[in-house]
Amino acid sequence: METRSAAQAAIDAFNELPAHVWPRNARRQEDGVVTIAGVPLTEIAEEYGTPVLVVDEDDFRSRCRDMADAFGGPANVHYASKAFLTRHIARWVEEEGLALDVASENELRIALAADFPAERITVHGNNKSATFLQLCLDSRVGHVVIDSHQELAELEALAREAAVTQDVFVRVKPGVDAHTHEFIATSHEDQKFGLSLASGSAYKAAVDAIRSPHLELTGLHAHVGSQVFDAEGFKLAAQRVLALYAQIFKETGVALGYLDLGGGYGIAYTTEELPLDVRAVAADLLSEVQDVADDLGIAAPTVVVEPGRAIAGPSTVTVYAAGVVKDVHTSYTTTRRYIAVDGGMSDNIRPSLYASLYDGRVVNRFAEGEPTQTRLVGSHCESGDILINDAMWPDDIARGDLIALPATGAYCYAMSSNYNAFGRPAVVAVRAGRVKPMVRRETVEDILAREY
Amino acid sequence: METRSAAQAAIDAFNELPAHVWPRNARRQEDGVVTIAGVPLTEIAEEYGTPVLVVDEDDFRSRCRDMADAFGGPANVHYASKAFLTRHIARWVEEEGLALDVASENELRIALAADFPAERITVHGNNKSATFLQLCLDSRVGHVVIDSHQELAELEALAREAAVTQDVFVRVKPGVDAHTHEFIATSHEDQKFGLSLASGSAYKAAVDAIRSPHLELTGLHAHVGSQVFDAEGFKLAAQRVLALYAQIFKETGVALGYLDLGGGYGIAYTTEELPLDVRAVAADLLSEVQDVADDLGIAAPTVVVEPGRAIAGPSTVTVYAAGVVKDVHTSYTTTRRYIAVDGGMSDNIRPSLYASLYDGRVVNRFAEGEPTQTRLVGSHCESGDILINDAMWPDDIARGDLIALPATGAYCYAMSSNYNAFGRPAVVAVRAGRVKPMVRRETVEDILAREY
Ligand SMILES: Cc1ncc(COP(=O)(O)O)c(C=O)c1O
Ligand SMILES: Cc1ncc(COP(=O)(O)O)c(C=O)c1O
Repeated sequence: METRSAAQAAIDAFNELPAHVWPRNARRQEDGVVTIAGVPLTEIAEEYGTPVLVVDEDDFRSRCRDMADAFGGPANVHYASKAFLTRHIARWVEEEGLALDVASENELRIALAADFPAERITVHGNNKSATFLQLCLDSRVGHVVIDSHQELAELEALAREAAVTQDVFVRVKPGVDAHTHEFIATSHEDQKFGLSLASGSAYKAAVDAIRSPHLELTGLHAHVGSQVFDAEGFKLAAQRVLALYAQIFKETGVALGYLDLGGGYGIAYTTEELPLDVRAVAADLLSEVQDVADDLGIAAPTVVVEPGRAIAGPSTVTVYAAGVVKDVHTSYTTTRRYIAVDGGMSDNIRPSLYASLYDGRVVNRFAEGEPTQTRLVGSHCESGDILINDAMWPDDIARGDLIALPATGAYCYAMSSNYNAFGRPAVVAVRAGRVKPMVRRETVEDILAREY
Repeated sequence: METRSAAQAAIDAFNELPAHVWPRNARRQEDGVVTIAGVPLTEIAEEYGTPVLVVDEDDFRSRCRDMADAFGGPANVHYASKAFLTRHIARWVEEEGLALDVASENELRIALAADFPAERITVHGNNKSATFLQLCLDSRVGHVVIDSHQELAELEALAREAAVTQDVFVRVKPGVDAHTHEFIATSHEDQKFGLSLASGSAYKAAVDAIRSPHLELTGLHAHVGSQVFDAEGFKLAAQRVLALYAQIFKETGVALGYLDLGGGYGIAYTTEELPLDVRAVAADLLSEVQDVADDLGIAAPTVVVEPGRAIAGPSTVTVYAAGVVKDVHTSYTTTRRYIAVDGGMSDNIRPSLYASLYDGRVVNRFAEGEPTQTRLVGSHCESGDILINDAMWPDDIARGDLIALPATGAYCYAMSSNYNAFGRPAVVAVRAGRVKPMVRRETVEDILAREY
């Protein structure tokens, strides 16, 4: 019965929760129910409805600490809040001692609303408005990352007006294209962010900032891409930006102090993928920076990083309820099972937008039955509303089963929409057996509230 | 000076507002300011801020009437509310005498909140929950479009329980793949919607519905895709579904009455594109249906359609303010100008999601200067946040200029997100020289309001 046991092995694997994809405190109980931090997902679904995002708070915090350990201390890690930001999350980041990267006026406002210390905030953005820049000055943020000559002039004028001196970094395009999905690679030349190293544009901005009495240039910034698995991209960027750093030191006498190498640390979305080994990459990167600095005859700057996905991503699972199950003929002899859940591209646009892959599990019981070619779809009125394109799942999944997708902490809730007038899911944190609601489910009344 | 005059012709063209792309009541004044329905966009930007969506109410209404004229009366046109829905819009549709297609429980709730007559509502969805089906029965909607055998059984049981009879259509997959973008083609077999014609699944559902005392089958539905420009897809679908219609008549004696051919009528997003000639396609389609019915020896059913994009899309422009302007070297000898505006993928995900093309214009003045290779980008922290990838625009556009993108009425606001904590834009309607606010701008307080 070789086929039978192969099928059984597939189902057994389906019932496992691969540790490199699931939150650190996810377990399956003896009755088959999955818990996170000791809380059964069935209970959360019962109380908060579905879809619901469940954040393993200790997982999130432990990844903050892992990053801090790898990069020489929490102050060197700036959590990229664009990945997932609520006031609760900002407070966790604060309590873990990390700094915060914000990329818009409202991200800054949310951080301030959470009493995140302004001096630990780094401000990004390719198109900061005058209001946004003024808010940076007024709230005394730690660093503004200058993205263009125009912004440099505007910030300079506002700082002069306010008679303050603002610490700044200059964002450099090192011309490195880390191998990742085209849409999220951000360091090649032909893109909107930063100032070119090759053309001398970044050097000019650095010198202008140094000369201004109202700006204090304390570092250089480069971000090579997102969901990066190859450490070489980070190292190459570090080498190139360090050369500029040394040039600035030699020509102006100013040792800036910081090298901000951005985010992009890759995570595993599926069983087959392996997350980047952050500790190894960090060690490699830090020794590379030391070596290059030695070669250049300068003191090595402090390396800071801005991980978003690698901290928030693995902490969270999205729990859906299964609805309609349908077998569709794909040829005369083959069928595909379609399982529809009560969310979709409104709460997770990543499969449609980036062709991202996800794994899923039944979390209210052990699954049984035969492995069947399955596609997990959402409830939106669009045929591209697919969460998992192709999986071999047991054929006993039916309406009412709970299906959870792990690794949905980053860029899911943050990019969620009201497509088809769907309300955004509830978000809860779990920790040590307790549930803490973070964001309540959005209702149709919420959606109508802004209408006249 | 041939180059000079070619350049001048390009700038002149840039200052024109192509009538097939812009709202019908868009004009450029002598001072260069663009008005819609007599209201200067500069005034709207001043009062409501940017980005702002400006809906030409008479344009929207006139497209409702054009569709009604083409398809034999307003009752035959079901506006697909997923494209763009607010209570105001539902009321315009109601006043124009059209029916309404909703695709989710909340779309239905919004329609009911606008007092849209329930008997003129058709309800779609591949994964309707029991609550949603119950709401359909309780509010006495006109038609529920049955998408699966499972739904048929569930609706039957609920209708029996409630002792009512619900009018239904059966959604058929006719196996036609209209030539359009892959993500939005919805009639091939291997997709989540509908019941297969080829496998006999659709016929079985129709017979089951006819046999049930609690369901009244009154029509068949098929949707071939979105942004379709080739009438052949609609005709082929009509032929195939009519064959099923005739089969049902011959084997059960029931003449259903309606053939719902869905939406998908293509519009022009850019100057180079041509919208589908709806009147010609409709005439063609209706005579095809008559011919096929004659051949099959049955009375021709009433054809109904569900346009969303073709009604909402051209009515609306999104007005942004230009911010940072940056020239980027794309090689030693070439540069590309990046113009950043104060919105982006949060208010219009279509370029990122479907590689959709858009045109844009400066609307606060006449543009001048030399045509320059330009990319219009948003303010989000992502290099794929591009609104217009490649355009030849005059080189005098600077911070504070207003840039409007036409044809943003469909699937823009409807799919908008809070990415980077951006609030959703304000939406205003203009008509006969007056501005009517429809949706107020979303603030950071709105975003925080659902947090605990
Ligand atoms: C400047 C910058 N820093 C940090 C990040 C975070 O990247 P990730 O979430 O992949 O770590 C991004 C992502 O786009 C970024 O653009
Ligand atoms: C069933 C159905 N009807 C109507 C529409 C509206 O399509 P369009 O806006 O392209 O006219 C859609 C779009 O997805 C649909 O799925």
